[in-house]
Amino acid sequence: MRIAIDAMGGDNAPFEIVKGVDIAANELKNLDVLLIGDKAKIKDCYKQLNKDIPSNITILHTDIEVTMEDDPMIVMKEKNNSSMALGLNELKQGNVDAFVSAGSTGALHVASTLIVRKIKGVRRSAIAAILPFETPVLLLDSGANPVVTEDILNQWAVVGSAYVNKMFGVEKPRVGLLNNGTEEHKGTPVAQEAYKLLKENPEINFVGNIESKEIPNCPCDVLVTDGFTGNISLKLIEGMAKYMGSKLKTMYKANCLTKIAYLLMKKQVKDFRKSFDTSEYGGAPLLGLNKPVIKAHGSSKAADIRGAIKQAIRYSESNIIEKVSQALQK
Amino acid sequence: MRIAIDAMGGDNAPFEIVKGVDIAANELKNLDVLLIGDKAKIKDCYKQLNKDIPSNITILHTDIEVTMEDDPMIVMKEKNNSSMALGLNELKQGNVDAFVSAGSTGALHVASTLIVRKIKGVRRSAIAAILPFETPVLLLDSGANPVVTEDILNQWAVVGSAYVNKMFGVEKPRVGLLNNGTEEHKGTPVAQEAYKLLKENPEINFVGNIESKEIPNCPCDVLVTDGFTGNISLKLIEGMAKYMGSKLKTMYKANCLTKIAYLLMKKQVKDFRKSFDTSEYGGAPLLGLNKPVIKAHGSSKAADIRGAIKQAIRYSESNIIEKVSQALQK
Repeated sequence: MRIAIDAMGGDNAPFEIVKGVDIAANELKNLDVLLIGDKAKIKDCYKQLNKDIPSNITILHTDIEVTMEDDPMIVMKEKNNSSMALGLNELKQGNVDAFVSAGSTGALHVASTLIVRKIKGVRRSAIAAILPFETPVLLLDSGANPVVTEDILNQWAVVGSAYVNKMFGVEKPRVGLLNNGTEEHKGTPVAQEAYKLLKENPEINFVGNIESKEIPNCPCDVLVTDGFTGNISLKLIEGMAKYMGSKLKTMYKANCLTKIAYLLMKKQVKDFRKSFDTSEYGGAPLLGLNKPVIKAHGSSKAADIRGAIKQAIRYSESNIIEKVSQALQK
Repeated sequence: MRIAIDAMGGDNAPFEIVKGVDIAANELKNLDVLLIGDKAKIKDCYKQLNKDIPSNITILHTDIEVTMEDDPMIVMKEKNNSSMALGLNELKQGNVDAFVSAGSTGALHVASTLIVRKIKGVRRSAIAAILPFETPVLLLDSGANPVVTEDILNQWAVVGSAYVNKMFGVEKPRVGLLNNGTEEHKGTPVAQEAYKLLKENPEINFVGNIESKEIPNCPCDVLVTDGFTGNISLKLIEGMAKYMGSKLKTMYKANCLTKIAYLLMKKQVKDFRKSFDTSEYGGAPLLGLNKPVIKAHGSSKAADIRGAIKQAIRYSESNIIEKVSQALQK
């Protein structure tokens, strides 16, 4: 198994990326990593880690990085030698089995679509975030396509179901449509038309419209929506979790008694925080593409990168892409 | 001050409505309430409360109620003698100064627009939810209009600013546009065009695109968006708060030590829960209408109804509608 990693993408690159790669490379002996980025900087990271570069890590040098400010199309033009473009090209040429990047979502989405290409018949690829509740809820699209059609949502239901089935072992993944009410006639015209298509789709297990207040209770395994609503929902979940966490902190710091209370339930508070930790999943797959691409969170730490690599390996080992391809032929 | 209340609307009608009205009517001596609903049932509620109906409450009898299943247009046709329709007609005819209902949002929105009518020049009326963070954030539209145009969003910025200014005393309300990124080019075509209009609007204090993860930190006083995204955001905030609350409960019940911890910080836990209590605001104003209509939450309890009545009074006493009308003439 050979995975390419963008060493230059994300807020904590290259150090946290390199550290995460190192953890994964030590853990998984039959893993080969192609680490793409500035060779000198990567070596510096290893110095900081007080380690030698393990033999299963190869460095592909480039000092060109795609920034958050760059127009997504830049990867195809001026920055076609950036770490992101090189990684996607390695993937396209079959030199690696999957690619992981914590860089710009927009750029990764555009460049993946143009370089790696979509599965035949797929109209749009989606970024599928994994929501951190009791059971994972796959939210797609979570930001790449602000405007969609009902056909696109219907395809994503198939693609998402295949992913959840193979990755999390869910037999018949429940598919929900994110909407502003449970009734069939609710929502925008696109949501209304999507409901009709999803209801009639024999390839999926459609459970109807899902109201956002139910999301934390995991009412479905796959939740389809446009990338505008999906992105706003994803970030609102993140924002609320963070807000609640900081409120909790303030509560415990209020006085001597609350500080004692904290000591009495330190473990539970830690578990509470951990329940919103997404590092186990490590990233969001770009679904609908011909090959596995994982978008790691922009603020990824080493644990997230390790998680994203493990997800990339499992994705690559599964036959999800083949399964989607077959389902769409029907 | 004379306020009409729909005694039949909402999950806890008529008892919680009557109880809330009774609290408000006893608190505010110069308030007259027109309570619209089934006279016998209202009298039963007072029996349950072990009280006589105070002299500042008058009952307007009807046993017809609008249900959640009814098509919104029904208020105008078969159910034009329902508690909702009668209340709106009393408001239209000037017999009362404001109307409060916890009934169907869709029906109240449609019937208000058709009976009470919009302010001249307003293209769509919006339901403006008040988000329960450190400082109130007025979210409009929160569910009435799934599809909007940039002009509508721009008008809502003006209407919402006038409301926040008069109701919460905010000098220059900060207006934000809910979007999937902070950059100007982000979002749907409608959001992109709305950004341009909002930026150039001299009547408002536009602070740019707002990412949903920032909402709990109150980055603006007025947050404009379409009713689809707004409704999903509102319900997600509710759902996350409820989920976190129940997680907290489980944490404290884990073992003897955590139960002691709970006792040590009971007050803080109570305050934490209370910080998500929306009963002080009591309801969402329907903005853009010629007269004050307040939509109380469907699950309203007495405290919410009391809050909604107080909000209706302040709304009616303010010159918000006049101010909006003047701003739109410009």
